Amino acid sequence: MADFDPTFNPHRRYNPLTGEYILVSPHRMKRPWKGQIEPPQPSNLPAYDPECYLCPANSRSGGQKNDAYEHTFVFENDFAAILPPPMPAAPQPPHPLLASEPVQGGCDVIIFHPRHDLTLARLAIPDIERIIDEWVGIYKRRGTQEGIEYVQIFENKGAMMGCSNPHPHGQVWAMSAVPTLPAKELDSLRKYSESNKPSETAPKGPKGCACLLCEYAHFEASVPIDESRIVIKNDHWLAVVPWWATWPFEVMLLPYKRHIPSLQELTQEERTSFADALSRVTKRYDNLFLCSFAYSMGVHQRPLPAKEGASVDDDANTAHLHLHFAPPLLRNASIRKFLVGFELMAEAQRDLTPEQAATRLRLCSELHYLDQAEAGKEQ
Amino acid sequence: MADFDPTFNPHRRYNPLTGEYILVSPHRMKRPWKGQIEPPQPSNLPAYDPECYLCPANSRSGGQKNDAYEHTFVFENDFAAILPPPMPAAPQPPHPLLASEPVQGGCDVIIFHPRHDLTLARLAIPDIERIIDEWVGIYKRRGTQEGIEYVQIFENKGAMMGCSNPHPHGQVWAMSAVPTLPAKELDSLRKYSESNKPSETAPKGPKGCACLLCEYAHFEASVPIDESRIVIKNDHWLAVVPWWATWPFEVMLLPYKRHIPSLQELTQEERTSFADALSRVTKRYDNLFLCSFAYSMGVHQRPLPAKEGASVDDDANTAHLHLHFAPPLLRNASIRKFLVGFELMAEAQRDLTPEQAATRLRLCSELHYLDQAEAGKEQ
Ligand SMILES: [Zn+2]
Ligand SMILES: [Zn+2]
Repeated sequence: MADFDPTFNPHRRYNPLTGEYILVSPHRMKRPWKGQIEPPQPSNLPAYDPECYLCPANSRSGGQKNDAYEHTFVFENDFAAILPPPMPAAPQPPHPLLASEPVQGGCDVIIFHPRHDLTLARLAIPDIERIIDEWVGIYKRRGTQEGIEYVQIFENKGAMMGCSNPHPHGQVWAMSAVPTLPAKELDSLRKYSESNKPSETAPKGPKGCACLLCEYAHFEASVPIDESRIVIKNDHWLAVVPWWATWPFEVMLLPYKRHIPSLQELTQEERTSFADALSRVTKRYDNLFLCSFAYSMGVHQRPLPAKEGASVDDDANTAHLHLHFAPPLLRNASIRKFLVGFELMAEAQRDLTPEQAATRLRLCSELHYLDQAEAGKEQ
Repeated sequence: MADFDPTFNPHRRYNPLTGEYILVSPHRMKRPWKGQIEPPQPSNLPAYDPECYLCPANSRSGGQKNDAYEHTFVFENDFAAILPPPMPAAPQPPHPLLASEPVQGGCDVIIFHPRHDLTLARLAIPDIERIIDEWVGIYKRRGTQEGIEYVQIFENKGAMMGCSNPHPHGQVWAMSAVPTLPAKELDSLRKYSESNKPSETAPKGPKGCACLLCEYAHFEASVPIDESRIVIKNDHWLAVVPWWATWPFEVMLLPYKRHIPSLQELTQEERTSFADALSRVTKRYDNLFLCSFAYSMGVHQRPLPAKEGASVDDDANTAHLHLHFAPPLLRNASIRKFLVGFELMAEAQRDLTPEQAATRLRLCSELHYLDQAEAGKEQ
């Protein structure tokens, strides 16, 4: 029997966080592509846009006016998907198979910076640190409100992702239930810690138990670079195209030196290192196809901030802080991957292997392409 | 406490087929939409396109030539995601968390009709019956090949779904493993049959056990039409926007009069009724926004055709034949829903309730909009 060649043989990879598979068809990389061409990303944006509802001191469609903010700015979403209390009583299901539950909470928008034309990839490290501080603040504030069981921090960037406003911003949805995907991941982390022995060298989770993500990150950090899925690694954070990635250039960003359940537990040094990692990953993304790279990004962590006086061995600390980046682009600034057909009806599928994607991202510069001309002039 | 109002209060609905939730935010239906406008669907297509690799007697990029077919035509995909045997030996995982398995099988393309400009919505019932016959044939042929454990029939339609060729066609992927989503659904059906008593009036699954989809379809067929999720109902088939629908106008099409595990078990009458249901659902889809409605559609059924002499009480017959339609359009022919941000990172979310979507589809005509002018002339 022939040897297995992961750059040729179709195979399925198992995602231990979700318990799902992805079908990998690396031999198909060269098939001709005929499909939709995406409109080009806008470039040459103004630093201030009088029509933008996120720019400083501008009015929003709800009638409110933004502060003349100088760094970050947070406001409650004028069209929140989840509403504050009181929540109505749970309805009687018309049939046991038609179950539902009311949900309550709140949705915030966090503007990353006053400049309309910048993104994470072009912000200075101290500006990114201010965003992280804001995330920590919202996580603590929303996560201690009555009836809240989960806080989801995320960013949706680019017209290709249905986000029409290029002004750098993210969102935070706080809700009375743990949503599907984080619930699945937390369950996988818990089961892993209960049924696996920790390896000798990897960091440990609560009560010295094995942590799925500590083990995974520790292993990935040790793989020789030419077989590796590493995109960047700094003192505290590791960015990898995970073994089980669905999107062509999907990235998971996580701390790999110690077990960290949430943003709240980051030391100042780890926060600065986090800002550095965010900057470097997003710069490489933009440089990959020389465009403002569209993605959805989300923070997964302990559902709520730790209660005062809670032990580090608290079960909730089985969570391991990590970020997912899900970008749609596949071949260039105009050709995206579609999650359709077989993927919607059967199983996620990719052609490019995660190792090939990571290599491509490792080859990208960390000097942003829009700053290269300027850097040239300065020399 | 206020009463729960499913057309206003945010709530989560449980999908018993996947075990996942969807967040419903019906109060948000009126938020202003600012995002990507999709290019218009092509119209006035020629009946024959000399450049189309699916038109009769034309050449494909692999160099092969299509038959001068008169009805349907099947060929092996020139860029198959899954390759035929021999399959290499399973690789040794570099770490237990980096699991994978080789996969083998085959991918077929099935052209629905010689006319380049027609779709399911505009084909005559006998032409749709020929497609169903072809599906049954491929299911039996591929499903009895060595090493095959699952056959996925699906259609991906529309540039919005990444499918650039409007020539009506679908695909069939046969593979050596049951993919993620059908595996999850089959598991849910099995668990339901093991732990629920069948209702008195609904059809029963193997061994007289309760079938999740028999129970669900039977219940939906009984709901008064003004509270209903029904799109169409004929003698054997029911089309509903399921209680747990993710896509705005998602439809599940399934037989509701008796438990039918796969296409193979359909009587001739049930096949004709199936063709009628497919025609009526797709006509309503096109008439909703007066465009060729994009969607991904997939057939879920018993993973493989029944073996000769197998009992109807065979465990594999716990499967209940059904089709999912996942269309992206939301408000008109140019405005689509994006599965991004919170949805990729946390949980599926919709604003329009399934009941509202079903009402919209019930109000659509079953005379195709492109045929209405003609029908007027004939009067
Ligand atoms: Zn950990
Ligand atoms: Zn059934």
